[in-house]
Amino acid sequence: MPGIIDTDVHQTLRNKEDILAFLPKVWHEQYMTHGIGLSNPFPTPIGVNRKDAVPEGGGPAGSDPQFMLKHHVEAYGIEYAILTGGGETGVALIPDLDYGNAIIRAYNDHYMEKWLKADPRFKGSILVNAADPAEAAKEIDRLADHPDMVQVILCSGARTPYGHRFYHPIYEAAERHGLPVALHPGSEGKGMAYPPTPVGYPTRYMEWHNILPLTFMAHINSMVCEGVFEKFPGLMVVAIEGGIAWLPHLMWRMDKNYKALRAQTPWLKKLPSEYIMDHIRLTTQPIEEPGRPGELLQIFHMVNAEKTLMFSSDYPHWDFDNPKVILPPMPREMKARILSGTAYELYGSKLKKPSQAEVSR
Amino acid sequence: MPGIIDTDVHQTLRNKEDILAFLPKVWHEQYMTHGIGLSNPFPTPIGVNRKDAVPEGGGPAGSDPQFMLKHHVEAYGIEYAILTGGGETGVALIPDLDYGNAIIRAYNDHYMEKWLKADPRFKGSILVNAADPAEAAKEIDRLADHPDMVQVILCSGARTPYGHRFYHPIYEAAERHGLPVALHPGSEGKGMAYPPTPVGYPTRYMEWHNILPLTFMAHINSMVCEGVFEKFPGLMVVAIEGGIAWLPHLMWRMDKNYKALRAQTPWLKKLPSEYIMDHIRLTTQPIEEPGRPGELLQIFHMVNAEKTLMFSSDYPHWDFDNPKVILPPMPREMKARILSGTAYELYGSKLKKPSQAEVSR
Repeated sequence: MPGIIDTDVHQTLRNKEDILAFLPKVWHEQYMTHGIGLSNPFPTPIGVNRKDAVPEGGGPAGSDPQFMLKHHVEAYGIEYAILTGGGETGVALIPDLDYGNAIIRAYNDHYMEKWLKADPRFKGSILVNAADPAEAAKEIDRLADHPDMVQVILCSGARTPYGHRFYHPIYEAAERHGLPVALHPGSEGKGMAYPPTPVGYPTRYMEWHNILPLTFMAHINSMVCEGVFEKFPGLMVVAIEGGIAWLPHLMWRMDKNYKALRAQTPWLKKLPSEYIMDHIRLTTQPIEEPGRPGELLQIFHMVNAEKTLMFSSDYPHWDFDNPKVILPPMPREMKARILSGTAYELYGSKLKKPSQAEVSR
Repeated sequence: MPGIIDTDVHQTLRNKEDILAFLPKVWHEQYMTHGIGLSNPFPTPIGVNRKDAVPEGGGPAGSDPQFMLKHHVEAYGIEYAILTGGGETGVALIPDLDYGNAIIRAYNDHYMEKWLKADPRFKGSILVNAADPAEAAKEIDRLADHPDMVQVILCSGARTPYGHRFYHPIYEAAERHGLPVALHPGSEGKGMAYPPTPVGYPTRYMEWHNILPLTFMAHINSMVCEGVFEKFPGLMVVAIEGGIAWLPHLMWRMDKNYKALRAQTPWLKKLPSEYIMDHIRLTTQPIEEPGRPGELLQIFHMVNAEKTLMFSSDYPHWDFDNPKVILPPMPREMKARILSGTAYELYGSKLKKPSQAEVSR
């Protein structure tokens, strides 16, 4: 079995109070009374976490680095776990930008202290406020040199698609520091976001969760068409926790339309699907599970999985994908690329790849 | 070559004035001054119609039944053309329900007179106002027995997903009359609709057109999860002009979630994908065109194309699909089902299938 990099692992606060030491006093009362203040009209009936992931020492699932190492990282022989955070990811949907920015800084500071110092296998994502791109760029500048911060992360909930020039300061900063920008779902329809679908509110958690990848399609479509990857040719984008099988449709539809409508986007120099192949990476979970399993491998070929996919588990969430069983039968080389090869390439110098000698031991 | 039923052909008014004879006088000034009043922030730079589809006798493309017969229906040996209308389809996004209902009745009345009487190869779709389900049901009751009206049609733009109980009177009426309910895109983001994506407004026509199938995913997800097909087991839904390749992803994601979350939808008695296979039909255009053409046939197998797909051309729109060249190489029986077999089944008694003797002549 090749090494594993798990590209979506959720750490969380043990107590709400955890970040108070890093949050300016002016916000304490608001935070302790209202939290980050994002409504959630779609509560999960089964809880968001695996019942078996509660740390022995107490606290919520995902709140104890040592327990996570034992229960997940070591249990599956994971070389690196890319931490992607919890409910704070949706800060960009808080109307008060100053409050959102303060929460973000406190969260990032607490996280570096508690998690990134705990073990070199934990790598981090710099949370930024996409609704305030100038401040987001400053936060990237502040933390990009941290040896364990390997990417920037945005929530996929937004009021404007991510290709819009409004966001370009974030991409300029990320590209300058050589950091990929990741998107993570979960905030759709919360705070000041539009409803989770273009036709309004789904009814309950299941319907809401079923259509989360809609935001990914909208953002990727926008980033490619707006020329983000011509303007920032070094930028890489990671679509986390949206699955995979929607990508062929999007690429093909974009390519077909581009052939007739490219006069609208004269800055594009190649097919939309080529930008996607060169600049977008997807994490596998929640991997689709067709009734006829061979069809998933067909999808893998359609998206050039050797190049674009990276394994993720979503530990400790309820829809966790187990790396030992979740991937369909596939060529050995493809599997090695998905389990860690592409992630080593993407996160580059901040992940130390074991030498061949170490691997053979 | 098997017979062809073209399940998406757009007829349009020759002049705005065409429907005045059918519209109550109280609305004339509003209609002549403002039309149906739906904003369009995403104009196409190449025009919505094929340049060669302008009738010899003048008027816009799609406005002359005799020219359409010659230029499209007879040119491709089409047995039936299912007419799906033009910009009026978006009436459900007009805030004034009375105005929308008046426009709809005038439009349906004019259309029966001008098009359905013109040739037996034209079949019609009863346009209804999804924003006013009680009136929509009345319009279905008024026109369902017309021998050439073969389905009900709704715009895919909406403020609430189509599974919601608000819409059930429409499905009750359609099922009672044995008529499928079709959805057609094009109104996304117009009138009182939400933005065309859950993350806001795309920038221009190409980006808008690239992501139109998002509304279909949201509606089908909603209709299945809300139990529409348990409540109306005879109801069939046709997703027109949204393409195909997004369906495997949606089915698989819904099935995976259903296994964990079905306590939320105790009314469902089988997998979401089974409801989709039994109750949803898709028209082929704009068919996806992968760089590696064999991949489209893989998608056809994933969606059980023999059962679910029906050929459509979208004549006379710019992204017309030519029935002679657009389908990938496939088994003969599958092709016959897509070109007409499934449509004959779906539209049943109102389409007279040529007898074997006639076919062999």
